[in-house]
Amino acid sequence: MEQQQNATAAKPIHCIVKLGGAAITCKNELETINEEDLIVVSSQLRQAMISGSCHGMDWSKRPGSLEIPRVIDDFSDQEVTDSKKFIVVHGAGSFGHFQASKSGVHKGDLSRPLVKAGFVATRISVTSLNLEIVRALAKEGIPSIGMSPFSCGWSTRERNIAVADVSTVAKATDNGFVPVLHGDAVLDTSLDCTILSGDVIIRHLAAELKPDYVVFLTDVLGVYDRPPIEPDAVLLREIAVREDGSWFILKPELQNMNRQVEITVAAHDTTGGMLTKISEAAMIAKHAIDVYIVKAATYHSLKALRGDLKENIPDDWLGTVIRLVK
Amino acid sequence: MEQQQNATAAKPIHCIVKLGGAAITCKNELETINEEDLIVVSSQLRQAMISGSCHGMDWSKRPGSLEIPRVIDDFSDQEVTDSKKFIVVHGAGSFGHFQASKSGVHKGDLSRPLVKAGFVATRISVTSLNLEIVRALAKEGIPSIGMSPFSCGWSTRERNIAVADVSTVAKATDNGFVPVLHGDAVLDTSLDCTILSGDVIIRHLAAELKPDYVVFLTDVLGVYDRPPIEPDAVLLREIAVREDGSWFILKPELQNMNRQVEITVAAHDTTGGMLTKISEAAMIAKHAIDVYIVKAATYHSLKALRGDLKENIPDDWLGTVIRLVK
Repeated sequence: MEQQQNATAAKPIHCIVKLGGAAITCKNELETINEEDLIVVSSQLRQAMISGSCHGMDWSKRPGSLEIPRVIDDFSDQEVTDSKKFIVVHGAGSFGHFQASKSGVHKGDLSRPLVKAGFVATRISVTSLNLEIVRALAKEGIPSIGMSPFSCGWSTRERNIAVADVSTVAKATDNGFVPVLHGDAVLDTSLDCTILSGDVIIRHLAAELKPDYVVFLTDVLGVYDRPPIEPDAVLLREIAVREDGSWFILKPELQNMNRQVEITVAAHDTTGGMLTKISEAAMIAKHAIDVYIVKAATYHSLKALRGDLKENIPDDWLGTVIRLVK
Repeated sequence: MEQQQNATAAKPIHCIVKLGGAAITCKNELETINEEDLIVVSSQLRQAMISGSCHGMDWSKRPGSLEIPRVIDDFSDQEVTDSKKFIVVHGAGSFGHFQASKSGVHKGDLSRPLVKAGFVATRISVTSLNLEIVRALAKEGIPSIGMSPFSCGWSTRERNIAVADVSTVAKATDNGFVPVLHGDAVLDTSLDCTILSGDVIIRHLAAELKPDYVVFLTDVLGVYDRPPIEPDAVLLREIAVREDGSWFILKPELQNMNRQVEITVAAHDTTGGMLTKISEAAMIAKHAIDVYIVKAATYHSLKALRGDLKENIPDDWLGTVIRLVK
């Protein structure tokens, strides 16, 4: 057994996945999960992580329900499955943003009662979402473990990560668990407090743990050259990143190469929109880690999660690949 | 502002409170909170911690509810209150125990699929309870912050605490928050995993952070000489602790001093009953920290939480005091 565990511990992190707030929640309905998509996302994650059979790991009642959950009794019959190391990070979507923007938590200053209350309210909202996502994954048979950046002792200095020891996250994966982190309200040594976004967490984890690839699951097909609701919006298929983190659009060849990529920034998204996403992705890709931005709960997201795109990107695959120029 | 914060940071921890699983949940109903008592406990905690007015800090919807919570808009008018540093630790009661005992998480061995699934299921159950307690406290105006020992990176070796850095907890209190920890499933360097009980967490926090006093809120008046349901059970009013941690009953003088204290251990309580409680309390008291074991949501618990017993214990106060022999 010890040998088996050491073998698991020695494996590198296979993949870090961002569940975008827009993909797993209904962005315009306060604290409402996109249940249908979350079920599909959980199933795709399980298919990408685990080969073999597995049983549900959420044995708790639903809030307000009297029904006692079904616990499998024949775990001993279960074949031991081979699983790849994954880490999941999710955004807030319609959880947390309301509380954070109402109180200005991202601006700091805990001496203001409204900010302090907003900090507490934001953490309640995002940890509620975290619990629901952990439960959805566990129900699917993924050994998911909720881990809040605040509780992990992570903190920032002027909104940049100051302290963020990844050893607890790594130990969880070494023991066969799938850590589920989230954008969180954290302490900031210069501002008192701020919001640490899921995208910044992903970048930090990727730089420290060097996964094979990173997948961003979102609510559109990928990154477009202008707001995707505009009729002429073009999906950017491949963005090339140089070692210094600068980037350019490789595919498709745009008619006007000088035109800046126009970006969708939803007004209530306090942690930035698509431009932040490309920049964060480029910061990951410069470490020679492929990044796929893809619509959640689709054929395309399953391909990305499974790592099918590492060697060859099929022509019918829709999404944005961001990777180091070879 | 900085001065004010430094003043807060310099304050010692005033009190660590254990919310016993039996006091805040309905022990014989799976995953059911004792809502009435939790409301009273939250109110008493607020009275003990905060002087001045305060507003609710839970701005989230109830699960399954469409009602949008009421957010106070006039936080600027709120007088800045003086607050004492508290830490809250809660047990599991009817949360977690079922999942833990069904799977044998406390015995370890994560190579067994049932244990691994039980670890995940236990954490889902205890973090659900933690979220509910954080919400109840926040609703009352207490700036509560949920912190899971697992996420804090705490681990054990043969069930004893091996790594449990309290700096994140201390930083939370320094910034005016009330950390809310809980008994949790954690990694164990020799067994793979085990259960870290709320009582062991309390002992560790007390030894490291030296609070003025510790209060255990439970579902009986205190510690009895035999199971409290027996008609002749006598409430032990005061237990004296020597510097080596050994203890004896000081009040009342029992007729047969040689008789061992009989202990109520509920069959499904995987983390031990009253004997564990006295031993753990003695380990705290030997650091010259007074320990009060008292029935939750009573006149007696309010006195204990407020620190009214430090100087003088009134004759009409019912509970058990465990303290160092002077």
